[in-house]
Amino acid sequence: MKPHSPARQIDDVIHRIEELGYRAHPIYGVERTVIGCVGREDKSPLSQLESMPGVEAAIPILKPYKLASREFRPEPSVLDVAGVAVGGERLAIVAGPCSVESRAQTLEIAHAVREAGAQFLRGGAFKPRTSPYAFQGLGAEGLEILAEAREQTGLKLVTEVVGVEDLPAMVDVVDVFQIGARNCQNYPLLNAVGQTRKPVVLKRGMATLIREWLMAAEYILAHGNYNVILCERGIRTFETATRFTLDLNAVPVLKETTHLPVLVDPSHGTGQWQFVEPMARAAIAAGADGLMIEVHQDPPNAASDGAQSLKPEKFARLIAETRKIALAMGRQI
Amino acid sequence: MKPHSPARQIDDVIHRIEELGYRAHPIYGVERTVIGCVGREDKSPLSQLESMPGVEAAIPILKPYKLASREFRPEPSVLDVAGVAVGGERLAIVAGPCSVESRAQTLEIAHAVREAGAQFLRGGAFKPRTSPYAFQGLGAEGLEILAEAREQTGLKLVTEVVGVEDLPAMVDVVDVFQIGARNCQNYPLLNAVGQTRKPVVLKRGMATLIREWLMAAEYILAHGNYNVILCERGIRTFETATRFTLDLNAVPVLKETTHLPVLVDPSHGTGQWQFVEPMARAAIAAGADGLMIEVHQDPPNAASDGAQSLKPEKFARLIAETRKIALAMGRQI
Amino acid sequence: MKPHSPARQIDDVIHRIEELGYRAHPIYGVERTVIGCVGREDKSPLSQLESMPGVEAAIPILKPYKLASREFRPEPSVLDVAGVAVGGERLAIVAGPCSVESRAQTLEIAHAVREAGAQFLRGGAFKPRTSPYAFQGLGAEGLEILAEAREQTGLKLVTEVVGVEDLPAMVDVVDVFQIGARNCQNYPLLNAVGQTRKPVVLKRGMATLIREWLMAAEYILAHGNYNVILCERGIRTFETATRFTLDLNAVPVLKETTHLPVLVDPSHGTGQWQFVEPMARAAIAAGADGLMIEVHQDPPNAASDGAQSLKPEKFARLIAETRKIALAMGRQI
Amino acid sequence: MKPHSPARQIDDVIHRIEELGYRAHPIYGVERTVIGCVGREDKSPLSQLESMPGVEAAIPILKPYKLASREFRPEPSVLDVAGVAVGGERLAIVAGPCSVESRAQTLEIAHAVREAGAQFLRGGAFKPRTSPYAFQGLGAEGLEILAEAREQTGLKLVTEVVGVEDLPAMVDVVDVFQIGARNCQNYPLLNAVGQTRKPVVLKRGMATLIREWLMAAEYILAHGNYNVILCERGIRTFETATRFTLDLNAVPVLKETTHLPVLVDPSHGTGQWQFVEPMARAAIAAGADGLMIEVHQDPPNAASDGAQSLKPEKFARLIAETRKIALAMGRQI
Repeated sequence: MKPHSPARQIDDVIHRIEELGYRAHPIYGVERTVIGCVGREDKSPLSQLESMPGVEAAIPILKPYKLASREFRPEPSVLDVAGVAVGGERLAIVAGPCSVESRAQTLEIAHAVREAGAQFLRGGAFKPRTSPYAFQGLGAEGLEILAEAREQTGLKLVTEVVGVEDLPAMVDVVDVFQIGARNCQNYPLLNAVGQTRKPVVLKRGMATLIREWLMAAEYILAHGNYNVILCERGIRTFETATRFTLDLNAVPVLKETTHLPVLVDPSHGTGQWQFVEPMARAAIAAGADGLMIEVHQDPPNAASDGAQSLKPEKFARLIAETRKIALAMGRQI
Repeated sequence: MKPHSPARQIDDVIHRIEELGYRAHPIYGVERTVIGCVGREDKSPLSQLESMPGVEAAIPILKPYKLASREFRPEPSVLDVAGVAVGGERLAIVAGPCSVESRAQTLEIAHAVREAGAQFLRGGAFKPRTSPYAFQGLGAEGLEILAEAREQTGLKLVTEVVGVEDLPAMVDVVDVFQIGARNCQNYPLLNAVGQTRKPVVLKRGMATLIREWLMAAEYILAHGNYNVILCERGIRTFETATRFTLDLNAVPVLKETTHLPVLVDPSHGTGQWQFVEPMARAAIAAGADGLMIEVHQDPPNAASDGAQSLKPEKFARLIAETRKIALAMGRQI
Repeated sequence: MKPHSPARQIDDVIHRIEELGYRAHPIYGVERTVIGCVGREDKSPLSQLESMPGVEAAIPILKPYKLASREFRPEPSVLDVAGVAVGGERLAIVAGPCSVESRAQTLEIAHAVREAGAQFLRGGAFKPRTSPYAFQGLGAEGLEILAEAREQTGLKLVTEVVGVEDLPAMVDVVDVFQIGARNCQNYPLLNAVGQTRKPVVLKRGMATLIREWLMAAEYILAHGNYNVILCERGIRTFETATRFTLDLNAVPVLKETTHLPVLVDPSHGTGQWQFVEPMARAAIAAGADGLMIEVHQDPPNAASDGAQSLKPEKFARLIAETRKIALAMGRQI
Repeated sequence: MKPHSPARQIDDVIHRIEELGYRAHPIYGVERTVIGCVGREDKSPLSQLESMPGVEAAIPILKPYKLASREFRPEPSVLDVAGVAVGGERLAIVAGPCSVESRAQTLEIAHAVREAGAQFLRGGAFKPRTSPYAFQGLGAEGLEILAEAREQTGLKLVTEVVGVEDLPAMVDVVDVFQIGARNCQNYPLLNAVGQTRKPVVLKRGMATLIREWLMAAEYILAHGNYNVILCERGIRTFETATRFTLDLNAVPVLKETTHLPVLVDPSHGTGQWQFVEPMARAAIAAGADGLMIEVHQDPPNAASDGAQSLKPEKFARLIAETRKIALAMGRQI
């Protein structure tokens, strides 16, 4: 739509789009409104919209993802995530333990990462574990502990959802859903979080092409939930010196192709704590909008992912070092 | 247990295992019963079982998967899958369209693959698609069509389940659940099919190590559902001449490490119909227990996966050519 | 050229091709001669050849490889390799130790593989080793031992060349040059073996696309050396259960795109002796023209590649089992 | 040796090492001399060296690479490369065209990259090309053009050597040899450049494990040529959004395991000019000691690698932006 088109013109265009058999996805901006049209392969009938009042142009988008694309929204999205802006000048820092193990452990880490500069607390209550015999998370009790940590620290909560059936219990507690790498193409789960309108951190699958990852984001966006944050966390390659190969190339590729904010998780991406700080610095230098970092006060005894967790003092150092890079990039932590 | 141990001794041992804090998984064979013990890291208390009547040996299994391992069950499992033996001398042939598109299409293909030698009909009613705008399957209507095809042909039904919430509607219709590559590590779904006791075809994820795949199988087995069939369907590599890289090496690796039957899906593995027959022959020569093949009467107009689907006459030729290899391997189609 | 065109017409066409600024590559067949034209991007001037006597058609070939392509030569090439036909009904079996370690070792293995059915003896005199501190081969002394083995057994010799500077010493001794995986894109070496006219086994590099592999073959072919045999030996992927991932998909892909014969090396491809026989059977079922197998009388004490070497009796069993598959495929060992 | 051991003691120890059957590799530092001992598997006799005057300790190094390891030399090496320090505070910038195409082209680019801050001019005279029909470089004429560019600009010359036979013509002209990705494990070539004592930039192969790459470096080091610079340039993975996957994880992994300087080549690593600047910044933030960048005044008409080449003004911007990151890291450009 043309800048400052009146609401009535916008409604007329939406109405017409639906008459033509498409679904309309309006995104209302301060200056300008963009309306995405999805749902039929043949896009030619949409050209007639150009004759309607207020319509600036009807632009066909050829990429298989539409709502996630830069063609659909040329400017980077700055999302309001529970009161914290993600995608803007200030970097988003998500930190915390892999698993919520106990009240004491979680509160201690929450205070430490808050002090070091994080705005978000991560911590798994429901854990997807490779082995059925490994610790599977505290479940509902873990959610209560996270809620208490939020109350004490003001940190927003990011926690992983592994099944549609867990959503009702989680939706009133968490601030941001995380979809883990193994569920990147779990479409029923993507549909379900799409319907909640809660912000979602969507991690890349370990063998997911960037193109397929954006299609997975499109599942969430297509339900009208535009609060999607992508998170690169390492792909599977032949190299075994790192647990995965953190693919920082994905950052500039995504910056060119999508308006969605991009985080990087160097903890899972490298799998070894020594490599987390250098790769965190590199992520920000590549243009990422934030970091997700695993922190634990006693890594050797962590219930999961000890080898890649930083002690709180090492995390504080990481933030201090990464801040220098952020400033060089014209950004803030 | 020693061969031909009386049921009472077996029950006593199971009782003692549970007193010690483990879960007991008895597998009753014609000659001999094996009891798996899982649930605690420390296995040393189990050595005391050796003093009980009927116990032959208490053998610690070091691999992370237990119930799936050859140590647990040294002989290959021959599963009774809705009356069809899978894993024995006769190869299991699963064939059908990627998606159930219509009654006429499905019935025509079902009759054709039955005639050519298949015992199982595959066909998706709920489809996991990379794009949210692509055909997502007929859902419940698709299940009805499949049920009619079974009635007319006697073929057993294999169909993919993509969400826990779809299980109730499916469990009374399908003969075998398929877990697709994207859900190979969807643990809530694995737990849910584990509880049904229905046979399950578990496809390998596109970046899943063989070891992790067996751990995924272990999720199903740990619920007491021992009817698990593995299906290799191609992994992600740098090569683009084929859609995926069908990893036939997995067949002998699995034959050495697990007792579970192994199918191969050369349709998804190669992504091009010309390569399906040679790779089907190769799969059987490598020692696979069966094949899963996509068949469609009109590949260019298939709603999904047309490029890799065989016409019924090409499928019949594939069976004829593969039968020669099967005979050379001392097996039957 | 049209079938049975006289030599004079062929010479005229070659002459004209060179006047136009291309290099001509005639391949003289029993019925028909094909002349490849390479060397300039712009192929349009060649259409004028169609007006010359004896010319059937001037067909532009769009793939980046030309002489290796099926468009250039639609029928599979059956090469005369030191008197042994490779690419025809009878499979080519190349077997022997990884390294020539001593006279006694080499002669014993040579006799054993001859008896089991091999026509070619492999064995490295110059070894490319990952570590500069590992055994690097016996060099010239190794060549003498190989020559003696040939005299005693009649086996043809296949041995790896690792440097242009070793060629003069090797060219009068060996029957077939092998270019190893690490040298697949070593263009000076490819040019040098191209100039010798000796048959060449060109192994696939561990990260070489099939398309790039055919371009590497094209380097040899472009010198007029048409005796090129391709050998799949495993690619680098994320899976670590096997040393490499033997990519049997390459066999049908190559059969569709090139006329060159294709061998498979399951010893390097899997890296473990237990998997060599099943993958050898699978290779033949996929359509390969032969096998390259490592054999050693004392694998635990082999100077290199012990884990993947078969004892002579296991090799004999492999041949017996693979022969059944070959017969099912209408071929001979 | 102990700090400030007299030359006589050092000579005695070297003599004794050779008597014991090892090769001695002394590295003379300002404060301290380290003597590497290689050549026999059994290292136990070396413990007797500890009783000699001046010997501080005899430390067994277990990694397969020795001279390249941090155990051998705990401090990062700062190499003197034709008068330019590489590995120290100031970053090494290597820039220039993929191929030397003409005198005018090369001189123009050389002046431009000199002005923007490069110390080294790259440019291929002998080109390894995937296709035998592609431009293969100007050869000796290219070397002359490079020498003139050096004379005019003072830039040091880095150029690729593709064959042992080209070394004599190159050794008096070039300042630094480059071993390309395809030759990373071309051992005769590594041996040959090892004997020259000229500095060598050793690029990682596209499927080379970091461990194998260090073994390749060891081939050069084992000849006493300690002037080896590693260069990460992207590995082969399943992702196709970038030409290769630039593996920045390799930077911190190498910084932990080797004392050799590490460059990064984001031009080949990403294959697209838009991604070169962000990945150059990220490389420096990850801890790299310098960059190798392709620059061309007319990318669309470059004889090779146009898509990934930067125009001189974009290269100047890259340097300006990367300088900010370098300063944040406490380094200089």
